[in-house]
Amino acid sequence: MTGYLDDITVDSTDTAAQEALLRPLTQSIRSLIDAAIRTQVDREVIVETTAALEQLAARLRSRQFDGSYGHQPGIAGAQRSWASPVIGVRNPIAPPLAMAHDPDGRVWADFEIGVGYEGPPGLVHGGVSALILDHVLGESVHTSGHWGMTGTLSMRYRRPTPLHRPLRAEGKIARIEGRKVFAEGSISDEGGVTVEASGIFILRPDRTAG
Amino acid sequence: MTGYLDDITVDSTDTAAQEALLRPLTQSIRSLIDAAIRTQVDREVIVETTAALEQLAARLRSRQFDGSYGHQPGIAGAQRSWASPVIGVRNPIAPPLAMAHDPDGRVWADFEIGVGYEGPPGLVHGGVSALILDHVLGESVHTSGHWGMTGTLSMRYRRPTPLHRPLRAEGKIARIEGRKVFAEGSISDEGGVTVEASGIFILRPDRTAG
Repeated sequence: MTGYLDDITVDSTDTAAQEALLRPLTQSIRSLIDAAIRTQVDREVIVETTAALEQLAARLRSRQFDGSYGHQPGIAGAQRSWASPVIGVRNPIAPPLAMAHDPDGRVWADFEIGVGYEGPPGLVHGGVSALILDHVLGESVHTSGHWGMTGTLSMRYRRPTPLHRPLRAEGKIARIEGRKVFAEGSISDEGGVTVEASGIFILRPDRTAG
Repeated sequence: MTGYLDDITVDSTDTAAQEALLRPLTQSIRSLIDAAIRTQVDREVIVETTAALEQLAARLRSRQFDGSYGHQPGIAGAQRSWASPVIGVRNPIAPPLAMAHDPDGRVWADFEIGVGYEGPPGLVHGGVSALILDHVLGESVHTSGHWGMTGTLSMRYRRPTPLHRPLRAEGKIARIEGRKVFAEGSISDEGGVTVEASGIFILRPDRTAG
């Protein structure tokens, strides 16, 4: 399998090698996100670090594609998800969730998140839960062999979701009616469900998930 | 006004100076997020950059607080929002949105986002729209003088939301019934509304927004 990332990793011809190269880069930026919120270093260290980070960003930018990720030519297979803000191994915004799935459309991921995703003190931001659940419900639709766009998405916040604790996100197909797929899911901590979600995905009958 | 960031910025005693110091640090990491997804530099540059970023993160981490942001002592006023994943000037995950508001609870922000927030090719991730709308609806509740937790949040995706285009997010209070505040909002592009949202916030009668 080859893809546009061959352009980046000139000596790499397979997706696994590309991922092995890019995953630590992404992880180092996740570490910076967390550190930027937590740091208590002196002013001069922040000024020097900022200048050094700007130089490193410019070096990465010295050769880059323009425009959106999904429209880049040659993206195939696993690379499609690399820029996802939920599961993307190449997107520092993503925790990232590592999804598991059954062929019947049940999907789940165990994860734990920190201060980058904080809403009320010590708790996961409600919108971050929504971001994760949108992905989980969509992936349950795709895993079951359908392709559709989110039509509606509804969250019910039953109780607070804690930061820095083991969490599980899961989703499944509830039923299909014509072009509408009804999916449902939840986020849970050790004490049970914290957020419930339901969504309706509108199928594109001309497409199926690969 | 003083706060815990005095511990970081030893020679700074006001919030504006602290923000002026931290905003460029955060922005440099936002630039890295975008660059990590777009870069096409050679393998050795990625390896070198990763090592340099890890060193810089370690330097920021050489003195930092543990645990959540909101529980840090001394956080007050504007600093409360600095770690927000939607508006936080100190959180690289945040675009960040710069919110404007009327005293009656109407809030809005004009923004534009790129590949870090991509879902389908060239389009904003549906969960990112939900993250933004959760914040906007919550801020409309707080702006109107109330304090409450999100009870439910529902999105209707009317049509795709484009990346790299001017967008507006807005929210307002629709009505209040007992302890429930009904808020509604939307994201729009130049052609009109792309996503509608409604939410119910459960008031804590013992608290009001500051």
